[in-house]
Amino acid sequence: MTAPDASVAPPPASGAPAPFDAVELIRAKRDGGELAPEEIDWLIEAYTGGRIAEEQMSAMAMAVLFRGLSRAELSRWTSAMIASGERLDFSGLSRPTADKHSTGGVGDKITLPLAPLVAACGVAVPQLSGRGLGHTGGTLDKLEAIPGWRASVSNAEMLAQLEDVGAVICAAGAGLAPADKKLYALRDVTGTVESIPLIASSIMSKKIAEGTSALVLDVKVGSGAFMKNEKDARELAETMVALGQDAGLTTVALLTAMSTPLGLTAGNALEVAESVEVLAGGGPADVVELTLALAREMLLTAGRGDVDPADALADGRAMDVWRRMLAAQGGDPDAPLPQARETEVVRAEQDGVLQRVDAMAVGVAAWRLGAGRARREDVVQAGAGVVLHAKPGDRVSAGDPLFTMHTGTPERFGRAREVLCGCFEIGDAPVPRRPLVLDRVG
Amino acid sequence: MTAPDASVAPPPASGAPAPFDAVELIRAKRDGGELAPEEIDWLIEAYTGGRIAEEQMSAMAMAVLFRGLSRAELSRWTSAMIASGERLDFSGLSRPTADKHSTGGVGDKITLPLAPLVAACGVAVPQLSGRGLGHTGGTLDKLEAIPGWRASVSNAEMLAQLEDVGAVICAAGAGLAPADKKLYALRDVTGTVESIPLIASSIMSKKIAEGTSALVLDVKVGSGAFMKNEKDARELAETMVALGQDAGLTTVALLTAMSTPLGLTAGNALEVAESVEVLAGGGPADVVELTLALAREMLLTAGRGDVDPADALADGRAMDVWRRMLAAQGGDPDAPLPQARETEVVRAEQDGVLQRVDAMAVGVAAWRLGAGRARREDVVQAGAGVVLHAKPGDRVSAGDPLFTMHTGTPERFGRAREVLCGCFEIGDAPVPRRPLVLDRVG
Repeated sequence: MTAPDASVAPPPASGAPAPFDAVELIRAKRDGGELAPEEIDWLIEAYTGGRIAEEQMSAMAMAVLFRGLSRAELSRWTSAMIASGERLDFSGLSRPTADKHSTGGVGDKITLPLAPLVAACGVAVPQLSGRGLGHTGGTLDKLEAIPGWRASVSNAEMLAQLEDVGAVICAAGAGLAPADKKLYALRDVTGTVESIPLIASSIMSKKIAEGTSALVLDVKVGSGAFMKNEKDARELAETMVALGQDAGLTTVALLTAMSTPLGLTAGNALEVAESVEVLAGGGPADVVELTLALAREMLLTAGRGDVDPADALADGRAMDVWRRMLAAQGGDPDAPLPQARETEVVRAEQDGVLQRVDAMAVGVAAWRLGAGRARREDVVQAGAGVVLHAKPGDRVSAGDPLFTMHTGTPERFGRAREVLCGCFEIGDAPVPRRPLVLDRVG
Repeated sequence: MTAPDASVAPPPASGAPAPFDAVELIRAKRDGGELAPEEIDWLIEAYTGGRIAEEQMSAMAMAVLFRGLSRAELSRWTSAMIASGERLDFSGLSRPTADKHSTGGVGDKITLPLAPLVAACGVAVPQLSGRGLGHTGGTLDKLEAIPGWRASVSNAEMLAQLEDVGAVICAAGAGLAPADKKLYALRDVTGTVESIPLIASSIMSKKIAEGTSALVLDVKVGSGAFMKNEKDARELAETMVALGQDAGLTTVALLTAMSTPLGLTAGNALEVAESVEVLAGGGPADVVELTLALAREMLLTAGRGDVDPADALADGRAMDVWRRMLAAQGGDPDAPLPQARETEVVRAEQDGVLQRVDAMAVGVAAWRLGAGRARREDVVQAGAGVVLHAKPGDRVSAGDPLFTMHTGTPERFGRAREVLCGCFEIGDAPVPRRPLVLDRVG
């Protein structure tokens, strides 16, 4: 091999010489070797500090995608990402804490009723959330549909609100696991997102850094989820539960179905309204079922398995916490929610039983209508989205409305209709009811 | 998945939207798919133009390392790299052309006697060469030890010299396969050098762009070579021969042994002196053998299989071309060669038969003495290097000199001695003579 003209080179090390060589570590992982703890610490720390080039870390991420990480490597990798930033501490609170993370699904507004419900049962919920990208909405985007509500809360405000109200849903500060932020952004543009150890360490580094003492994971499976099959979802769930255990965090995962949207809405304000219905004791059965299932797991992991969250939904205590939680962050729980200027209905063309409604297609339609963003800098429409009028198993007649599309930019109806019209199927067969919670790992 | 804060993003596309998405192509290759011809063209062209980010191309290179490239993909990849720059054309010359490429070995000075020898037999040799990096020396570094000689030659000068003298050894211009230059530099820092299709396309894109009509490849096998075992070397040879055929270039490869250095010298001026011995009709048997074997293949592929190159060595015609070739590029063939200021001898500590002399160790020792460079910007010492006084199979007595180290920076003797002292073995067994040319692929 002779030398090429230089055009790319790693950033020069400043100060002391590096204890390891990035190329050697990439080659070791590429060839199936196991990285030593101190090598992983250096890799993550030097990458976060800009002393390992982006092109080197993307090659490493691709090598990890092919070769995997052992449990010891993965634990250390996650610890190193946590160590890259600050770590919150809720041990001074007067009650236990529990947090929930969902891997993302269409119509997944569960965090909204869940956090106040669990708080109403005596367990504090510090729920640091993100914004949506692609076909799944983000919890912060949904709450920002509420007039006045702000996502940004200081650590001191968060602690005070947890003590006073019991629940806070807010944006994760830039100080938590900055290595993960940098690495996730890199993986996003280099085809290295789909690695179970990298997904698991990304999620768990943030959740562990958030300082909760118990964690419930909602790992979605199906066409509308990141994990399309149960095998991959189970592997991700088991990997995350192991990481939680290694970090001394009580962790449980539920595998839940995501082949059809949760509830009847996909879109920011539309999902807030549906969440309020649930808090008021109504709402779609599947949203209520999953909210209660996750609440029970959170209470159990936080040592309050004796409390039945259904009572707190029925007697209005969860709604009270919801209103106080919004108000503490400037939101007006009584203000009317934004509505899209235009709506258009998609109707059934024949009689029969609705066989399926594809979650991914509904997510993409809501996204095209303006509910989500294609790029991080995009602004979402609070009122945009899709309302379902029937779910799989429901009998429909020709001419019945199946979906209503909502948007402030009606030129988008065409492309949303295109995907919605191909996403359902009407037939004669009865549709067996499939369980929502597929399994529990923990 | 929720959105991270942005810290890395692909460079924004300027002008027309890109016809393909880099992330989609990376994912396709990662998952074992085959890239379409127009996808490959776009990938190489957009990368060379800076519209695909380095971190994306390194992820792609790692995916190719794991998944390989089909013959059709590899041919197109190579064509796209050729199309990224200029292509030389020697079809106007009055004689056929043949070129040789070696994958690099220790003491491999064969190009120096070979190019004038083949030219003396009536076939023009446009030998575009590189500089050394690491333990193998570069042909240009060696010739630059000759006072006055310059590596840089314009295309017009090259053509004139080929017509007049018949041989030119010079630096490849920056205009040849710039995609390869950029990609090789990236692979070098991302652990993605060791991919047979990427190595093959790197070598062949430059050789095909150089415009020769016949090509002989010297694929080295052994401890001092890039390919440590015959299986990998054969795969590389077969891949390159196929690429040559696909491009309409008559291509042959020899697999040759590189477990012990070629000849008795490793180092720039030292190797020039040994090459001159060969051109004068003497020199070490292995250097003569390989020079003649490669010359015969070059003559055969260029349609002059009737000529015996041994005659041109014996009667001084090759030496005449050598002298005219140097003079045409400003070199003085009669000037004394630079000599290192200091020498030190490593001696045998026992009687016996020299069992082995490790090529890699000798290469590293010469490099440490100043003959090679660790970084592209390093300056090499013309006089530095190692002279061997015995080869495997030779009988030695305690106190006999085994190596002489040459350097202008005697503080380097220690680290060179360290590696040399561990690289040979004296025993009682006779050492069977192993063939130098292991096989022929073509």
